[in-house]
Amino acid sequence: MPLLRAQREAAASALPPEVLDYYDAGAGDEVTRREGALAWASYRLRPRVLRDVGAVSTATTLLGQQLAHPVGIAPMAFHALATEAGELATAAAAGRNGGLLGLSTRSSRSLEEVAAAAAEHGAPWWFQVYVMKDRSLTEALVRRAVAAGAGALVLTGDTPYVGRKRRVTGTRLSVPDDHFLVNLAPHFGERVAAGAAALSVAEQRAAAEQDPTIDLSTIRWLAEVSGLPVLVKGVLRGDDAVACLQAGAAGVVVSNHGGRQLDRSVPSALALPEVASAVREHVRQAGPLPSGHAPVVLVDGGVRTGTDVLTALALGADGVLVGRPVLWALAAGGAEAAQACVAEVVSDLAHVMALAGAASIAEVTPDLVHQVVPTV
Amino acid sequence: MPLLRAQREAAASALPPEVLDYYDAGAGDEVTRREGALAWASYRLRPRVLRDVGAVSTATTLLGQQLAHPVGIAPMAFHALATEAGELATAAAAGRNGGLLGLSTRSSRSLEEVAAAAAEHGAPWWFQVYVMKDRSLTEALVRRAVAAGAGALVLTGDTPYVGRKRRVTGTRLSVPDDHFLVNLAPHFGERVAAGAAALSVAEQRAAAEQDPTIDLSTIRWLAEVSGLPVLVKGVLRGDDAVACLQAGAAGVVVSNHGGRQLDRSVPSALALPEVASAVREHVRQAGPLPSGHAPVVLVDGGVRTGTDVLTALALGADGVLVGRPVLWALAAGGAEAAQACVAEVVSDLAHVMALAGAASIAEVTPDLVHQVVPTV
Amino acid sequence: MPLLRAQREAAASALPPEVLDYYDAGAGDEVTRREGALAWASYRLRPRVLRDVGAVSTATTLLGQQLAHPVGIAPMAFHALATEAGELATAAAAGRNGGLLGLSTRSSRSLEEVAAAAAEHGAPWWFQVYVMKDRSLTEALVRRAVAAGAGALVLTGDTPYVGRKRRVTGTRLSVPDDHFLVNLAPHFGERVAAGAAALSVAEQRAAAEQDPTIDLSTIRWLAEVSGLPVLVKGVLRGDDAVACLQAGAAGVVVSNHGGRQLDRSVPSALALPEVASAVREHVRQAGPLPSGHAPVVLVDGGVRTGTDVLTALALGADGVLVGRPVLWALAAGGAEAAQACVAEVVSDLAHVMALAGAASIAEVTPDLVHQVVPTV
Amino acid sequence: MPLLRAQREAAASALPPEVLDYYDAGAGDEVTRREGALAWASYRLRPRVLRDVGAVSTATTLLGQQLAHPVGIAPMAFHALATEAGELATAAAAGRNGGLLGLSTRSSRSLEEVAAAAAEHGAPWWFQVYVMKDRSLTEALVRRAVAAGAGALVLTGDTPYVGRKRRVTGTRLSVPDDHFLVNLAPHFGERVAAGAAALSVAEQRAAAEQDPTIDLSTIRWLAEVSGLPVLVKGVLRGDDAVACLQAGAAGVVVSNHGGRQLDRSVPSALALPEVASAVREHVRQAGPLPSGHAPVVLVDGGVRTGTDVLTALALGADGVLVGRPVLWALAAGGAEAAQACVAEVVSDLAHVMALAGAASIAEVTPDLVHQVVPTV
Repeated sequence: MPLLRAQREAAASALPPEVLDYYDAGAGDEVTRREGALAWASYRLRPRVLRDVGAVSTATTLLGQQLAHPVGIAPMAFHALATEAGELATAAAAGRNGGLLGLSTRSSRSLEEVAAAAAEHGAPWWFQVYVMKDRSLTEALVRRAVAAGAGALVLTGDTPYVGRKRRVTGTRLSVPDDHFLVNLAPHFGERVAAGAAALSVAEQRAAAEQDPTIDLSTIRWLAEVSGLPVLVKGVLRGDDAVACLQAGAAGVVVSNHGGRQLDRSVPSALALPEVASAVREHVRQAGPLPSGHAPVVLVDGGVRTGTDVLTALALGADGVLVGRPVLWALAAGGAEAAQACVAEVVSDLAHVMALAGAASIAEVTPDLVHQVVPTV
Repeated sequence: MPLLRAQREAAASALPPEVLDYYDAGAGDEVTRREGALAWASYRLRPRVLRDVGAVSTATTLLGQQLAHPVGIAPMAFHALATEAGELATAAAAGRNGGLLGLSTRSSRSLEEVAAAAAEHGAPWWFQVYVMKDRSLTEALVRRAVAAGAGALVLTGDTPYVGRKRRVTGTRLSVPDDHFLVNLAPHFGERVAAGAAALSVAEQRAAAEQDPTIDLSTIRWLAEVSGLPVLVKGVLRGDDAVACLQAGAAGVVVSNHGGRQLDRSVPSALALPEVASAVREHVRQAGPLPSGHAPVVLVDGGVRTGTDVLTALALGADGVLVGRPVLWALAAGGAEAAQACVAEVVSDLAHVMALAGAASIAEVTPDLVHQVVPTV
Repeated sequence: MPLLRAQREAAASALPPEVLDYYDAGAGDEVTRREGALAWASYRLRPRVLRDVGAVSTATTLLGQQLAHPVGIAPMAFHALATEAGELATAAAAGRNGGLLGLSTRSSRSLEEVAAAAAEHGAPWWFQVYVMKDRSLTEALVRRAVAAGAGALVLTGDTPYVGRKRRVTGTRLSVPDDHFLVNLAPHFGERVAAGAAALSVAEQRAAAEQDPTIDLSTIRWLAEVSGLPVLVKGVLRGDDAVACLQAGAAGVVVSNHGGRQLDRSVPSALALPEVASAVREHVRQAGPLPSGHAPVVLVDGGVRTGTDVLTALALGADGVLVGRPVLWALAAGGAEAAQACVAEVVSDLAHVMALAGAASIAEVTPDLVHQVVPTV
Repeated sequence: MPLLRAQREAAASALPPEVLDYYDAGAGDEVTRREGALAWASYRLRPRVLRDVGAVSTATTLLGQQLAHPVGIAPMAFHALATEAGELATAAAAGRNGGLLGLSTRSSRSLEEVAAAAAEHGAPWWFQVYVMKDRSLTEALVRRAVAAGAGALVLTGDTPYVGRKRRVTGTRLSVPDDHFLVNLAPHFGERVAAGAAALSVAEQRAAAEQDPTIDLSTIRWLAEVSGLPVLVKGVLRGDDAVACLQAGAAGVVVSNHGGRQLDRSVPSALALPEVASAVREHVRQAGPLPSGHAPVVLVDGGVRTGTDVLTALALGADGVLVGRPVLWALAAGGAEAAQACVAEVVSDLAHVMALAGAASIAEVTPDLVHQVVPTV
């Protein structure tokens, strides 16, 4: 059995049903959740023959950050529900593989702890920002992420409200408050220390709810607060990608939030070509970022194999983010399993690059894929 | 379980099999009945990110009538088969939600009773007209509907004859005559009072049969008799929509009669773009209606979720009509359940509008959808 | 249960398995046999509203022959395997419904007997010709058909050899020789009477085998021998249809022989538009037939409902031929059941014409259908 | 049951599970392996009527080599796992049918033995070359193949590394070393004889591993070493086909290695039109090969019936190679069964050519097929 499937099965045995459901659930009828992986498999590959692939390199650079491979870990909430060490394990897994870590605002461990683990294992990490109704909370968190060494911010653009999931009837109940407040508690404490009245847990939750009024101007605000590149996550359209870049973004993550937000959203594998093409055209007209780097297009949603990654790169992505499989791996065997999970995808990527006649990421070009109505 | 599915299951338990079949049946092989809902799900959404959706409004206006939302109740026959109060319950459900009620000629309660209930609950209502072989019957009914406060007429255009359904072998037997004659009995009485011979039930049925010779000129006749806007229901083609407008219609309902008439008719979700586009082009050339309002395009058939409604609006509809789910709700729990049914769809609509980056009905634009061959 | 399905089930009970298989079998993997009916269902209808359909007529004319409806019976072999009266029953069924009878060279009853029955019941009949290796046999048969009153010849164009069927391992064994020789025996007898040596059954079979060397010139030969219009059956391409007309044909039957010849042939429902369009274009350029009639395009393969017929006519056919369902009906209940079978299709045709807004065959126009990838 | 299916079932009973799996396995999720045959069935045929097909010939010529038919046997490894006589049986099967034999570097019997058997049975044979890391090994093998009478070389272009198969966890263990070394052992012996140290089995394996650094220049090297035409196997793109021809190739084999290399590669049936069209265009511009022959386009992958072959020829192939079915036949009944297997495909080809109106390979033209979304 393939490793990722075995880890998924092990996780299904190991996790309490409500946690499994919390991670696994998609919004609505879960059409988009299911289509995530299937959409990658709707492309067919056009491998090249007789290319020298004696040495294959998966190395790449994102916003100037050199990486051993383009397979990052998607920012996801509450890793300690899967393994006790939580995001510390994930940071170790990312670092040992030489890849990028996405760290969620909603981590089970404080961002400073995770940053320390990431530094120990050499993992560059980007901080995923939920802009909360209480903007000062958001700002304080972002400043801490900068101080802790985040390489970029990833602004969640697709979650003005949490998507309605049928499988999860009491999400918040199932998530212990001490996880939820890990990164926020200090700030509520500071206010009390500064003489304000203590907030009830309900009031804290209200303050921490995402702000549905944010708009494109939020990108520049975050860039100014942080001094970091800001990517927007959840982009599924070319016009939105260009609008984000024009509003100061350093890139986008093509994503439908793993099918957890708007059901029947277009699969990211099908949205990617449009977004990548719009970004390319924008760069052709407007040039690179002020930093001199090229804007970044990442993609997540259903990436499970090296062939999925190869397809994503050929369709114009600069890198991919792997989500749920890392959680299953953490549940199945902690940091070691998560490291093996990413390593498996990377090893498979190198293998299929060779079989496709591509010795480097630069040689993974659009002509390697075309979409067909699948016959199987 | 989603509310509408639960109500459907409750109805399946509560209703006698022959009533369930009467409501549920489609014509022929039921291809069109089944495709109704599936066709909405064949579209994929292209949500926008980073739009201010702090306040989302579903309010809209149809032919000058302000409504809290665009989710009307489709005109359907004999609601008392589902719940004792019949259309009185339906009127209450529509009004409490601030939406439109479609009232069928074939109601179980007299149109004056329903009109009173609609007025009590603040529901605007439109009267669905079957033009009967005895035109004087039709005319008398229409005048009563006008007197009772109907806001518009909806001319049934797709039923020159009743579609053949295999599941329902004895439809008329299963429908008590006292339902069938509720709105017509007074007129037969009047004739006797005026000295004519009493008609047998068979003769009454014959007089009340729909007239298969009606044509586009019937639109203007109804408009003149009633002084009301007349919409044509059952339109599946752009050329027909324009012909109806040119013949004096104030709008069309894109519909295949819930799959109950011509099997293998195009699903309304697939016919809608053509119709909406033809109407838009007609308005561009010919201007608005004499009343100054824009012609209305409604759609029914398989609308079950807020996402279906969002899709319909993006494809050019001004509103939708929900049919069978309201009957299931009535059977499951009367007016209260029917109100909850519509409220659920409206609430879901507001939610998915927010997730799609649309804060108002006007912002639900065609770029939000595109059709794909579904992979699930 | 629909009548045709009930008759099929009755036939499956009534017939010996080897006869059922003989009738039912398709060539190869039976892809084409299965697709026959499904292909009609891949079209969607675009009905018109508000047309006067108070009177609907299915009457039509083929090569000057007036018919009550366009639903003919396809020529098929050995009807006596299904019902004792064989083609006499079929002729009665065709005539009582006012439709066309296709009579096969391989009938169980002599063509003169069938012609008498057809005349008795008022059925126009066309004679299907297999050109045999012994041309004199063919010529003799054709002359008898002319003498017996055939209205046209239908040349089998798609059977240079019998298609290989897996279900039927011993076709010829399962067909009694007295059926096979019914129409040919007299001619073998004549030769003996004229002093030739008697042929063994094997020699008779060899002489009666279809001639694989026939070509387009065979059309004119048959026309000259018979003085009748000659249609070519088995045409699936526009260029072939035009070539047949140019070679003297009076029309074509779009057919893949019920999936019994070349498996994976295009379904006739999908080939029909191309053929009909090529014939229309040919007529536009070359005018009508020398007889002044328009060339005829018939279609068979999977026609089971009035909606199938409506679709065929809208796609450009002048009429359809129904095959296996008539055999099932014969097996289920002889002439009466076969009459009911055709009557059901015709009645359904009139019904769906009305629902589609077409009061006559001439109003069944191409805009009534379009093809979609079906979602059910 | 069709012969090939019966042979497959017999093989499944006869073979040890690990051998069955070794032959049967595809790479990755086996999407490409499964799609191989299905892709041929996604084409529909457009047969011609009334062509003289009294005599049908499947004879053809490839690179000047006359063949009784275009159905070759694909080069595959280790036939002795299926039948004791190994490739001797296969050579007999190919020769008795008058077709081409592809002989793999990895044969169970020495190429000289196989060449002798091929000569005895009149089978032309082409030698499939894996270019090994030890080029001198490769060169020595090629020279032996030339000496033994190979008609051409087939350079494996799609296997820089062996594709990862999940079903086969220990491929090499399951293949006895004496098979693996059959063609190579003499050369290792020669070195020892010449005074070099003996290589361990592991060292021998390393020397015999395919060289992942080969490129287009390898084509000319092989041509120069051998003086034979060189075809490249594994080509799935038009540009690659032209590049191979420009680099000196005499043709290509459109192939995804039976789905054993890069999973989700385009099915060869879908890649073929692009490749054939590019080759035709190249010939139009650059003329034929220096030998005066036309470059050859072969195709393999999922070819199971005469209809598949007809489709391949119509799509532009000059011939096909049949793979696994020959192995199943060898396992089911040795040389005799393998001969019957190929004979069945050829006989079916002649039959469907007749039904399609093509009396010779030259008459199998592109207009005979078009692709449709299959409805079954």
